[in-house]
Parts: sequence; structure tokens; C-alpha cells
Amino acid sequence: MEINGVEIKNNYAEAFGIKVTRLLVTAATKKLAKIAATEATGYGTSVIGCPAEAGIDGYMAPSETPDGRPGYVIMICNSAKKKLDHELLERIGMCILTAPTTAVFDMLEDPDDKFKTGFKLKFFGDGYEKKQEIAGRTIHSVPIMSGDFLVESEFGWKEGVAGGNFFIMANSKMSGLVAAEVAVDAIANVKGVITPFPGGMVASGSKVGCNSYEFLNASTNEKMCVTLKEEVVETEIREDVNGVFEIVIDGVDEESVKQAMKAGIEAACTVDGVIEIDAGNFGGSLGAYKIQLQELF
Amino acid sequence: MEINGVEIKNNYAEAFGIKVTRLLVTAATKKLAKIAATEATGYGTSVIGCPAEAGIDGYMAPSETPDGRPGYVIMICNSAKKKLDHELLERIGMCILTAPTTAVFDMLEDPDDKFKTGFKLKFFGDGYEKKQEIAGRTIHSVPIMSGDFLVESEFGWKEGVAGGNFFIMANSKMSGLVAAEVAVDAIANVKGVITPFPGGMVASGSKVGCNSYEFLNASTNEKMCVTLKEEVVETEIREDVNGVFEIVIDGVDEESVKQAMKAGIEAACTVDGVIEIDAGNFGGSLGAYKIQLQELF
Amino acid sequence: MEINGVEIKNNYAEAFGIKVTRLLVTAATKKLAKIAATEATGYGTSVIGCPAEAGIDGYMAPSETPDGRPGYVIMICNSAKKKLDHELLERIGMCILTAPTTAVFDMLEDPDDKFKTGFKLKFFGDGYEKKQEIAGRTIHSVPIMSGDFLVESEFGWKEGVAGGNFFIMANSKMSGLVAAEVAVDAIANVKGVITPFPGGMVASGSKVGCNSYEFLNASTNEKMCVTLKEEVVETEIREDVNGVFEIVIDGVDEESVKQAMKAGIEAACTVDGVIEIDAGNFGGSLGAYKIQLQELF
Amino acid sequence: MEINGVEIKNNYAEAFGIKVTRLLVTAATKKLAKIAATEATGYGTSVIGCPAEAGIDGYMAPSETPDGRPGYVIMICNSAKKKLDHELLERIGMCILTAPTTAVFDMLEDPDDKFKTGFKLKFFGDGYEKKQEIAGRTIHSVPIMSGDFLVESEFGWKEGVAGGNFFIMANSKMSGLVAAEVAVDAIANVKGVITPFPGGMVASGSKVGCNSYEFLNASTNEKMCVTLKEEVVETEIREDVNGVFEIVIDGVDEESVKQAMKAGIEAACTVDGVIEIDAGNFGGSLGAYKIQLQELF
Repeated sequence: MEINGVEIKNNYAEAFGIKVTRLLVTAATKKLAKIAATEATGYGTSVIGCPAEAGIDGYMAPSETPDGRPGYVIMICNSAKKKLDHELLERIGMCILTAPTTAVFDMLEDPDDKFKTGFKLKFFGDGYEKKQEIAGRTIHSVPIMSGDFLVESEFGWKEGVAGGNFFIMANSKMSGLVAAEVAVDAIANVKGVITPFPGGMVASGSKVGCNSYEFLNASTNEKMCVTLKEEVVETEIREDVNGVFEIVIDGVDEESVKQAMKAGIEAACTVDGVIEIDAGNFGGSLGAYKIQLQELF
Repeated sequence: MEINGVEIKNNYAEAFGIKVTRLLVTAATKKLAKIAATEATGYGTSVIGCPAEAGIDGYMAPSETPDGRPGYVIMICNSAKKKLDHELLERIGMCILTAPTTAVFDMLEDPDDKFKTGFKLKFFGDGYEKKQEIAGRTIHSVPIMSGDFLVESEFGWKEGVAGGNFFIMANSKMSGLVAAEVAVDAIANVKGVITPFPGGMVASGSKVGCNSYEFLNASTNEKMCVTLKEEVVETEIREDVNGVFEIVIDGVDEESVKQAMKAGIEAACTVDGVIEIDAGNFGGSLGAYKIQLQELF
Repeated sequence: MEINGVEIKNNYAEAFGIKVTRLLVTAATKKLAKIAATEATGYGTSVIGCPAEAGIDGYMAPSETPDGRPGYVIMICNSAKKKLDHELLERIGMCILTAPTTAVFDMLEDPDDKFKTGFKLKFFGDGYEKKQEIAGRTIHSVPIMSGDFLVESEFGWKEGVAGGNFFIMANSKMSGLVAAEVAVDAIANVKGVITPFPGGMVASGSKVGCNSYEFLNASTNEKMCVTLKEEVVETEIREDVNGVFEIVIDGVDEESVKQAMKAGIEAACTVDGVIEIDAGNFGGSLGAYKIQLQELF
Repeated sequence: MEINGVEIKNNYAEAFGIKVTRLLVTAATKKLAKIAATEATGYGTSVIGCPAEAGIDGYMAPSETPDGRPGYVIMICNSAKKKLDHELLERIGMCILTAPTTAVFDMLEDPDDKFKTGFKLKFFGDGYEKKQEIAGRTIHSVPIMSGDFLVESEFGWKEGVAGGNFFIMANSKMSGLVAAEVAVDAIANVKGVITPFPGGMVASGSKVGCNSYEFLNASTNEKMCVTLKEEVVETEIREDVNGVFEIVIDGVDEESVKQAMKAGIEAACTVDGVIEIDAGNFGGSLGAYKIQLQELF
């Protein structure tokens, strides 16, 4: 199968369950909302080593938000419910409450259950906090130095999908890089998903285990390293491919992740020098979801 | 004392010891270096609730860096050495190694000691890693999917200074906000410091303990809340002040923090509507450093 | 009438006819499309002194554009048809054709007539140019150094509306400034309009004629200058107002301009310190359109 | 000659005389200064079709500027003195005076002569303008709606250099594109120069005259078009080159242009896939300056 001359491999992405939350951070200005959203979702590429997987889902114009101010929707995810509860509390409390003029609203549809994050944060008000209602939501207003921080009382969480992915194989490293950027920008317009890695792009791939060092659980996937393709006999990189980047997607459900993969792949295929689109899996034994590339189109 | 008509209070900032690291992240482009630097320093406003205090110190042009590529200097800080070691490893391993085309160099002068962060990360290469020298530095080259990740073998740490600060009091909330932005931008040109809060600005202040809820160790400082100044008798906010923001600074040493405070205050005092500059302290009993505002000028 | 505590004055904006074009600039990446769009719309605040009024209307995701690449819609306007023809040719030829990887498509609905801009630009190809069809459009493909520049053969123009406006009056200069920024960001989500002044905000107002210097046709409107409100007896600025900014809107039709004014005013009214919204007119004798503020809501 | 494995051709850039001005635009915030600087330098790639060549030279921190506020230095250039006088007046009057909170200072060293731009603009104040001195400069303070616009009375101009240039030849279009971006970012740190094309990059090259259409004075340089290299027998593009971009530099003098070329080329040579650096000339008969590539290093 080809799109715009780029081969779409007959392969599937193996994705996993993860617990997701989805919040709207509004502020006095678009720029301030972005600042808070960025701080709260940093250090959040993968739960392998980060305390959460987190990212910005998208922008909401003033006319669309509960308080009529500009905002960014973010997602914070973790496989363990207790850890997610903790991360939500700290990332909101340390990175959004402390940011100028912010408010935080729950934006998750069909939650499995809820965290009492706002209810807990309100105690910071030391008795000066107040409860109010905005657009049918229970909101705590907590006086802070620069004004009142508004936070919804509860935030839903649900079983979502982590690790949706595709690989961009290109004729040069920079063609792959530009295509990855283009794919991430395209995915930004799909609701309910984030690309949690830096700038949405993944530059490194892992394999389970390590041949040379027994103490490591994971190590570089040498078969996918462009600089090793001459050296590693079992390389999976074509001779004409010199740039390989992966896009990883977390979403509120499988459908959102599929839409994101579709939008990202189609956009990547418009970039000069892209040769092949592939997907990553572990033989299908580990993850709950198998998303076939060719069935996306 | 007055600067540009703004009163500089006769008060001091109380600052604390913290262990700091200072790294240079380079990449193929300035934008990619910024992406990695931002991800690696997110979720890092205060060690009260974040796993580190972290931020971007500044940009280095290609002509100034060891590998001739554009880069950003970042600082990652923690009061506990073991935690700092962990954070350095994870923030580099998860947020910089995974980002496209990056390399990481140690940029701390006069370290107290060193972490073997690069030495540990090299094992990810599963035997394909190589040791090389760049500009007199020992560098590990680790093959990853998109190329080779370069990381210096060791990263210095030293006792630095956290919590340098000043308060901007303004005639309106937005005057205070704009002045805070201006101060942060000015501080960006001072070497060896970060402003770890979101966008460099702090919108909330805390007091030790909580009057209404015994289970809380810290709560909002009601005396500094603009929306409570009518209600709280002991308010420390002047009647004509309606906007209060704090700038918090971490630095490699006291001198750097002082320079940052000076640059930030002078810039804030150019903004229309700023009335007063104050500083935060806890009576001087907790912190190792007392930085007098008026002595900065 | 009040919105969120802000008084909406019983006044109207007087707007004028202007000839408008509306183009889509796509490129390999979102960033490159923005670069070309920005260059092509610079030096375009007002036809009083600039060769055109120009600005960015909005972003189009890859899935929405004729060539599947990211793009920005821009508008270029002039009251004189011949000048507009010239400006279109030069701004596309000098600022978009010369920018990496771009293509330009006509995005104006219901044109009054068309300019043969693409047809003229194709001759730059010196015989190597080719004609093709993309999404039902006639496109010229012109070989340039870095690849092929694509440009639609004809671009529509129509009688649109210039000078839609409103004034933000605030308690401090910075409150007014932040509110202006917020209004412009909100208007960015309305299709078919631009805010041609720098950053969308207007810091200066004019009156017809000049009292002190006969040789000038226009001069500062002293009745609307905040720094002159004590000095000028006929000042139109309330005593509690210290910040005044105007937003000026050009659009493809009156309805678009009205929607933009509504979105901008509603967003401005969420900003702390905004006191009053007014509109600018010349007694109604000069412009073809009178847009009543209070009828927008 | 090779830099980092990239061949530096034995060739020279042919540059021309042009009249240059160099201004500092300050504002309340760094962002506002950037907005005004960007608007004032737009539509300014080449005097062949634009009313000026213009661009941003660099950022100046608050501690470095005459009024202690953040600012951007811009350059506006034209070969004709009278046109330059006009452009300076209109670009300052329409794009900077109208932008919030701005001030404009002369930043040209060793001028040949001066334009009375500020002196002329002051009349807009209709008698309310005032003359003052800031850092030894004669400044006019003109009351506008949102405050006072400050402008230096006179602005120097001098004979500078236009059309300094180099070509980046790369293995893929995207490698060339990324290298061009990197070069432009590196040049941004050299004082006294601008890269006037969109984003600093030139995607199209011209030859004098036109073979197919007699009425054209200039047309695409088919020998340098990557998509024509199979078709055009006299192509100057190597078989392994698939991406060609040019960087064009204007500067206050030849030395600045040389430094910019050096910084840009060195940075471009760090980018994966760059094969060759060349320069553009017209046989040396047209321009006053011949800058040898290999002599830069």
C-alpha cells in the first residue's frame, strides 16, 4: 500500500492500557495558559522513567471554555491509579496553582471514576477558600497572592490507550526529522490524544533486555539504529533509509489513537524524502491493542 | 530608596542552600535544543512537591559550544544529593536522550563533586557505545534509532543557592503580571541562574503551617493575597496595590542570584504601574543567605 | 449594557469598503508556512501609509488544505484595485515564492472578479513551468532552486470591509494592553478577518486635520490620549481609565467583522481591570457601515 | 577545502553597495518589541520588488538599552537615499508608532549622514509633543492614545553592503532546509547584519534575462534548480545534491557580512547531509565586493 509514493508497511502498532486524565487549564491570556500547561506536562515522556506521561492535547478558544478565557487541554497519564492521583495533585498544585491567573477544569468524557484533586487542593486556602458553580461545575476558589485560583472539585480518569505509534523511515536524517515534526503538528488537531515525547518525536528505540550487560532490563534496539545498519547483520533498516523517527501517541480511547495515527501518517507522507511508514510491536503478546497501519486508510 | 519612582523596600530575601547541576543540551537546530531543554526541566518549580527544581539558564550560539551546534544551558537542582543523582539520570535519559539529535555536556564550574550520569547512560548502548573526546571532554556516544546520542561521562554538582526572590507590587493585577514577565526576561540574560516557576513567575505565596486545617504544613499566605486585603486585618498589601507577583531565583552561587535580582528589579521598575519592590523572608532563621534589596544597587 | 461588569457603550464603529483578497500559503512545515505568511503580510497596518493592509487570518491543518500540507490563510487588502493587483503580485512573488517549499491557493469565496497573479508569476519559470490541476484548481508549477513553487492561476478579490473597531478602556495601561492581546487572540479564531496592526493592537488614534500644523492632514487625537487627560479639557477618557487600546478589523464582509468584534469584546471583558468598551466613528458621514456595539450581543 | 567533511568551494560571493539604517525598537516587554520589529521589517526581502530590504539584527537586553527596556535592533535598507528616507518614515510611523509602548533609537555607528525622521514624526503630536534627552540623545515624546511614543530626532544612514551570500548543497531537500535554518540562527548572533529573506532563507535563484519570454528582465536560474537537474544539460548541481538553499546577508560593512558568512557556513556544516558550500556571483562585473569563501576561515 502506498500514500503519495510512500510505502505503508503491512504491520501493526501494539498499544497498551493506561489510566488517563484530561484537564483544561485556562488563564488570563493564551500565553499564560500555555506556560502553565507546558510546566505541568514536562518530565512526562514515558512512565518507564518519568513520574507520568503527559502532554498538551490542544488549544480551546475563549468562546469554548467554561470561564470564557483561553485555555489548553492537557492529559496526564499513569498505569497505576494511586500514582496518577498523586501526579495530578502535584502537577496541578505545583505547576498550575503557582502559575499566574490559572483555572483548571475537568475535560474527560465518560470517566471510569474520579479523583478528588480540587477538593484536596482547596485546603491550601486555609479557610478563605469558597465553593462556587461555573457552567454547572463545582469549583473551589482558593485565594492566592495574585488573585483567586479556581479548580474543579473532581477530575475524572478512565482506561485509555498508550503507545500507539508509527515509524517514519526517510532518505536522510533531516527528511525524517522534518516529517516527524509535520506529523506531530498534524496530530495536534486531533482531540483526545497527546504525543508525550519531546516535541512529540522519539529519537530512540528500546528492546526488552540487554545482550552485553545483564543488569539492564532494556537497551537500544540495534536493529533500528541508522548508524549501525552496516554493522548489525539483522538490521531492519533498508539500505536507502538514513533517518528513522517514531511518533508515540497516548489517547483517551483506541479510536482517538487511530485518528491520530492516520492524521500523522498522511501528513508525514507529504514530506520530501519519506520512503516508508512502519509500526512497532512486541509480537502482540504484551499489549491489549493491535492497530493495523493499512486499515487506518 | 527609589528606582524610576518605584519604592525599593528596606527588606531582604532569605535564600537557602541547594545542590545544583548545570548542563548544556545541544541539538541539530536551536528549536530542537529548546524542545529537549523544556521537556527536561518541566515539572520542576519547587522541591516542596516537584522531584526537582529545574529551568533553562540560557542559550549558547553554535560558536560557543563544544560541538559547534546551538544549545541551551539548563539547571537541575535538589537539596538531597541522592535525589539529584536520580533526577539527572532520568531527566537526561528520558527527556534528552529520547529527543532528536541531542548531546549533553557538563557546564558547571568549580564543582564540589561529580555524578557518573553519562557513564551510567552509556550501557543503554548494549556494547555498541563508544568513548570519544570532544574539546577535552570524555564523551560517550550511544547509538540510538535516529543517530548517536552524545553524553559527557560525568556531571559536576555543587552547593548553590535557592529561593532568591523579590516581590512586585503594582497598581493593577495586569501591571504586576507584565512587570513579572519583564523581570523574568531580563534575568534570562544573567548566567548561572534559573527562575524555576512557570514562566519564571510565582502567583501564590505560602506561610508555614495552617490555621484552619491542622493536617497541613503549609497554606496560603493570606496577608499577601490581593483579594483578601479588605478581609484580613494584618494584610501587608498597601491600599493602592492590586497586583502582587513573586520572582524566585536559583543560582550556582550567591553572586549570581544577586545579579539576577538586580537585573530583574531594574527591569520591573520600567513597567508602568509598578509601585513597590519587596522581598520574602522567614525572619532570617531558616535560610543561609540574607540578600538585602537596597544593597543590590 | 454590561458584560462581566464592563460597560458596553451605546456607540457604533464606522467601517469602510476595501477590496480584499484571501490566500492560503502552505509549506512543508507549519513553521515554514508561518514564516512566509508573516513576511508577506508585514508593513501592512493601514493604507494611509503602508502599501496594503494585510494580516494572517488563521491556520489550516494538513487535512483541510488542497495539498495536504499545513498552511496559513492570509488577507491582503487595498482600496484601489490596481494597487491591490500590484501588491498581490509583489507580496507573493517576493515573499512567498522566495520562501522554502511554499504553495499558494485562492481562498476567497464569492469573488467580484479575479486577478491573474499566478498566470503572471509563471513566466518566471522561463519555459520550464508546468500547468497542473490540484483539487479542481488550475495551478502553475514553477521550478525554483529548492524545488517547485506552486501557485494558483487566478486569485479572487471582492468588496470587503475595513476599519471595524472597538476601544478597550482599562484601569491601568497594562490592563488595557493585556486585554488587547486577549481580544486579538480570540479574534484569531474567527474566519474571514484580520487585525492588521502590529500584533493586532492599535496604540495610537488619529483625528482628521491638525490644529497646530496646517501642513498635516491627520494628527494625534488628543481627546483619547491617556497622558493628556488632565491637560485637554475635552478629553473623552474617564478619570478612572488609564489605559486605552483599539482593535481594528478588516474582513471579507460585514458579518465576519461583526463576529470578530463580538469575540474580541467578550474576551477582553474577562480581563481584570477592563472598565469600558467603546467604538470609533467619524459621525457616520464617511463610512459605509455602522456597527452598533450593543447589537452584537 | 573542507569543514567537518563539507567541501567549501573555491568561489566568491559578489556583493553590492546599499544604504543602510539601524534602529533600536524598545517596548514594555520583549514580546511587544518583537511584534513592532517584525511588522516594520516585513515585505522587505529584496529591493527588486519590495520597497526596502529589512530585517531584525538582534535582541538587546534591558541593561543594554538607552531606556532600560527590552528591544530589538532592526535594519532598513535601500539603494536610493530618497526611497530610504521615505521607508524609514513610513515603517516607523505606521508600524512602530502604532504598536503598543514603543520607543525608537538610532543605533548606527559612523553614519555618512542623517535623516530627520523623528523630527518629522513629532508633528503628529499636534503641539502636545515634547523634546527631551535620554542617554545623551535628542528624543521627541509624542502623545498617542495609549501613552507617549518616543522617537530619536535623527537617524543615521551609511553605505553598507547587500547581497553577501552562500549556497548550501545537501543530499536531500530537507537536509538543505534544516542547514539553512541553522545557518540563519547562527548569523542572528552576529551584530550589524540581517538576512532579509523569509526566515532568512532563499528558496529561489534568478538569472539576468529570460530565454523564453523577452518581456522579463529576470527569470529562474534553471542551472541551479534541483528538479531540473536531469533536464538541463548545463546544470551546476552535483548528482548527489538534492537540496539547494541560499542565505543572503545585508550588513553595515563588509567585515560584518564576512563574519556572518563565516558563522553561517560553520553552523551549516554541522548539519547531517550537507555536502558542499558554494557562493553566488555574476562574474564579478556588477558588484563592488568579492568575498572569497575559503578566505573566511
